[in-house]
Amino acid sequence: MRLHVPIRLRWSDLDAYGHVNNAEMLRLLEEARIQAFWITDDDTGDGAGAVGSSTAVLDGRPGADTLTLIARQEIEYLAPIPYLRQPLDIQLWLGRLGGASLEVCYEVWSPEATEPPVLYSRAATTIVLVDAASERPRRINDRERAAWTPYLDEPVEFTKRG
Amino acid sequence: MRLHVPIRLRWSDLDAYGHVNNAEMLRLLEEARIQAFWITDDDTGDGAGAVGSSTAVLDGRPGADTLTLIARQEIEYLAPIPYLRQPLDIQLWLGRLGGASLEVCYEVWSPEATEPPVLYSRAATTIVLVDAASERPRRINDRERAAWTPYLDEPVEFTKRG
Amino acid sequence: MRLHVPIRLRWSDLDAYGHVNNAEMLRLLEEARIQAFWITDDDTGDGAGAVGSSTAVLDGRPGADTLTLIARQEIEYLAPIPYLRQPLDIQLWLGRLGGASLEVCYEVWSPEATEPPVLYSRAATTIVLVDAASERPRRINDRERAAWTPYLDEPVEFTKRG
Amino acid sequence: MRLHVPIRLRWSDLDAYGHVNNAEMLRLLEEARIQAFWITDDDTGDGAGAVGSSTAVLDGRPGADTLTLIARQEIEYLAPIPYLRQPLDIQLWLGRLGGASLEVCYEVWSPEATEPPVLYSRAATTIVLVDAASERPRRINDRERAAWTPYLDEPVEFTKRG
Repeated sequence: MRLHVPIRLRWSDLDAYGHVNNAEMLRLLEEARIQAFWITDDDTGDGAGAVGSSTAVLDGRPGADTLTLIARQEIEYLAPIPYLRQPLDIQLWLGRLGGASLEVCYEVWSPEATEPPVLYSRAATTIVLVDAASERPRRINDRERAAWTPYLDEPVEFTKRG
Repeated sequence: MRLHVPIRLRWSDLDAYGHVNNAEMLRLLEEARIQAFWITDDDTGDGAGAVGSSTAVLDGRPGADTLTLIARQEIEYLAPIPYLRQPLDIQLWLGRLGGASLEVCYEVWSPEATEPPVLYSRAATTIVLVDAASERPRRINDRERAAWTPYLDEPVEFTKRG
Repeated sequence: MRLHVPIRLRWSDLDAYGHVNNAEMLRLLEEARIQAFWITDDDTGDGAGAVGSSTAVLDGRPGADTLTLIARQEIEYLAPIPYLRQPLDIQLWLGRLGGASLEVCYEVWSPEATEPPVLYSRAATTIVLVDAASERPRRINDRERAAWTPYLDEPVEFTKRG
Repeated sequence: MRLHVPIRLRWSDLDAYGHVNNAEMLRLLEEARIQAFWITDDDTGDGAGAVGSSTAVLDGRPGADTLTLIARQEIEYLAPIPYLRQPLDIQLWLGRLGGASLEVCYEVWSPEATEPPVLYSRAATTIVLVDAASERPRRINDRERAAWTPYLDEPVEFTKRG
């Protein structure tokens, strides 16, 4: 199963080529990831505004006792992205759910109305959960595992590693 | 009359203090301004996604024959902004509509549901319309003036110039 | 007396117009300000890398007991800035040194070798020193005042407030 | 052979964790890459400011007849990077020099004086040279191949693909 997170571009995401900057792409993935998986200060509990409310069980609030460290990222750029007013359709799932780490996989698609849809990018991020106090990795707990397991699927396949 | 543009924060808007970075605030204002006043590639014409569709008459597309240069900006920060999942309510109006330039005024408010609402910031941007070919200022045309005049109001009042 | 802080542009500072983005300008000012006034983790004490080492007395390190809040900023853009490999010459001084707040003034100049030099921008930032524990403004202390007083001069004059 | 490009952090590279943001890391790599391989408007020809002047043969100036598209990127984060006043030592080489594309490899090291040196990150970027007019890939020319061949070496080895 996949989460669909609508992510709106900003004019400032564009570089001097008039396309979304290659590094900015990772910010868009980060934002989709946070909207999908994090509890934030203003979460109402009814999941309003939280795309994947049922999956948003990772406490990302200041002073939370878990930090999420990024261990690796890989991204393939399939087509340049112009400024679009309609939000991109970023699709997320988990390619791996380990003991203390997980792999988030992404496909970045054109806005939902677009016909035919365009696949702009595919990517993956490996995240390690770290105990804020001990600064050491901590195991994914039962609540997290239960919330995330439905989104476990085949890892994204990269075609350009060459 | 004011335009209300909902602008969603990104985690990466926060700095090491956990608040929206002071410079990033201008990006949020820029985004609100563009959504309100610019025609973009994927405008459907029905104003879908264009907050102020009737005011979006300034062609911001690549190769457009008008460039918009920023002549000045002023901003007062009234309260730090934490990460919020609900979009900020950025209110825009015009404080001045000159021959070749205009002043966009802003108030940045907490998400619409928030009670009581919080005014985070007030700001103003002076924009000059420049002919892309001659690179010289060009007059605001009738279509633009007609679209924007309803939003002409008193300029924002700054209280911290001291 | 003025501090001269060389600030190098990044390609990603440019927007789709090929000029330094208007909001990014405030990041360049922020960076110059921090290099001039902050103590950071890796300060050697001999001022290596610290442009205004003698003025770098404000502890900006994580867990420092002072936070610096930005109360207001004002900036005039006099000429668009292209990508430059040589660092900009950002000149800083203090336009006001109050009880708990100060005004940093800036002129952004072309790289030092440039003939004739180009003044790209002028700006001012009002900073309030806040006690991290009480979250209330705290007075500028003697060490800070002694370090900064030599850089006190006339506030920058803005010409475009109109 | 490797190029060493000193890249200075900005305070705004830090996220709410107080570490260099994961996406920002790609901006630092981009900046190192551009300083190493691009001709820019203000190049003096004597390589002043151009770290790898002899390798800077790719015309990145507005209106240049070649665009550089990023096809893929991969990055491993080995240690979080705090704010550092001294520039990072970003080391670059080429892992592959193909017909119309090349792979830039990177290691991001602590500032040169640091003892013992810390390897913060390793990464790779695949770049395709595109003819601006036809928008189709164009072959690496003799001048480019001659300039870059000395920096051809084994591709970076990633250890976290799992």
